[in-house]
Amino acid sequence: MAFDLAQYMKDRAALVERTLERQVPSRNGRAARLSEAMRYSLLAGGKRLRPILAIAACEAVGGAAENCLNFACALEMIHTYSLIHDDLPCMDDDDLRRGRPTNHKVYGEAVAVLAGDALLTDAFRIAAEPSRAGVSPELALHVVAELAEAAGSVGMVAGQVIDLEGEGRAFTREELEDLHNRKTGALFVAAVGGGARLGGASHQQLEALRAYARPLGLAFQVADDLLDVEAATDHVGKRTHKDADRGKATYPTIMGIEGSHAFARELVRRAQAALEPFDERAEPLRALAAYAVERKQ
Amino acid sequence: MAFDLAQYMKDRAALVERTLERQVPSRNGRAARLSEAMRYSLLAGGKRLRPILAIAACEAVGGAAENCLNFACALEMIHTYSLIHDDLPCMDDDDLRRGRPTNHKVYGEAVAVLAGDALLTDAFRIAAEPSRAGVSPELALHVVAELAEAAGSVGMVAGQVIDLEGEGRAFTREELEDLHNRKTGALFVAAVGGGARLGGASHQQLEALRAYARPLGLAFQVADDLLDVEAATDHVGKRTHKDADRGKATYPTIMGIEGSHAFARELVRRAQAALEPFDERAEPLRALAAYAVERKQ
Repeated sequence: MAFDLAQYMKDRAALVERTLERQVPSRNGRAARLSEAMRYSLLAGGKRLRPILAIAACEAVGGAAENCLNFACALEMIHTYSLIHDDLPCMDDDDLRRGRPTNHKVYGEAVAVLAGDALLTDAFRIAAEPSRAGVSPELALHVVAELAEAAGSVGMVAGQVIDLEGEGRAFTREELEDLHNRKTGALFVAAVGGGARLGGASHQQLEALRAYARPLGLAFQVADDLLDVEAATDHVGKRTHKDADRGKATYPTIMGIEGSHAFARELVRRAQAALEPFDERAEPLRALAAYAVERKQ
Repeated sequence: MAFDLAQYMKDRAALVERTLERQVPSRNGRAARLSEAMRYSLLAGGKRLRPILAIAACEAVGGAAENCLNFACALEMIHTYSLIHDDLPCMDDDDLRRGRPTNHKVYGEAVAVLAGDALLTDAFRIAAEPSRAGVSPELALHVVAELAEAAGSVGMVAGQVIDLEGEGRAFTREELEDLHNRKTGALFVAAVGGGARLGGASHQQLEALRAYARPLGLAFQVADDLLDVEAATDHVGKRTHKDADRGKATYPTIMGIEGSHAFARELVRRAQAALEPFDERAEPLRALAAYAVERKQ
């Protein structure tokens, strides 16, 4: 029977949702608005791709999803904080995200900044809480450090600065790749690497899974650029054609639309090739690679 | 010979500066502006009170400063991120901090938000890197989780939300205390508790040191409120009288100036009483408690 990715994603996303609900509860009292703003963006029905990648990597090496659920939630919280801050008026100034008004449109800029700060900070509390007994503290500490490195000043935040400062300027293909390796790729690699570590990966397995995650992160971004050009807002749930409006460098502007599709397929092929040493337990990772470029939102 | 706090603070601050210089290096390349903005606020000559408290707690239980230097730096980075974000136009909208233009005045709002994000994220990378062999990963992981809890949605960020939403509204004394316990106190307690843990504190010592840190954090805030009323901007290095301008609840408005001074002294007495079981190695902590309310900036 063919592997059913849609069902797999639905099942794993449900595990993630339940853990997020528990880890980021609704609170009463004077800071109620903070938890409301955090949950507004966190529980807005995203694809949960980063947590699912972490779980799939954990399972590919024989671990159980439960070994990495807290880590998986931390990934989604970091991803969500970055979206809230990126949407701010002083950044990309977006009004729409996942088909709903952006956080600052609903809660105001101050609370949106703070909701992002709190999601980022709480992510490290949750990542530092081993999901189950049996994960060694040494391993958990290592995963926390790698997660922070991927999200921080040499990873995701650096990518956002390069993106902002590069608006209206031409990028070479190498510069664009560096930008996306930081802005998207680093967290993909941390997701797959952390999930694999928490699942008990050997050194060799870890290297192979990182070689899977690197092209996957880039493929995901190329597909994002293509969606921005090709799709309509009501389908994607956020404003489209905004890259061109803002003079942002994208793969379609550098390689053309057909060239970008071909490049994305080549990246998926490379990602899947890195999985050759793995058995059928890596089937979800293989299918996720194809999904990254075939998705419609 | 009487204990020389000024010399102690100078020596320990120098250790912290050196570690910060190494951990948050100046970077070239396209994200150079990010590291420049981070360093602008981080290396602006703050008092380094939180890191010094962590080191003093570590030393009070017989540990060496080197056991907690990374943790101490993480505290200062989290404190600095919170100042950068608090100064933003959408928050307190301040132009001056430590005698210099605020981060967003120099680098623009977008980079200021991102510099704060990067300092916060990198803090967890650094805290998760044990300062020296011999600190158990289990202990380090626990300290990271406590730090994130103190800084996150039930601690510092919640305090900032309550502060913002409370502007122009009357606070009871209990509400004000809750606000400051979150906004300032939680990180003080994490600093002292984390330093003590990394220094090898027993459970009993840890409890005593927390009983020291709680009133100390509040005393520090009462003193801050008094400085805002009594001092001139050129001395404090940030705008003064801004609490009253903004209709913020403060101790002087609730208890009067004399009443606030007396309350601060009482809190210092309580903090120092908690140190009774400790020997002369707790002398820096005793002196730091007095300093918290006697300082002129």
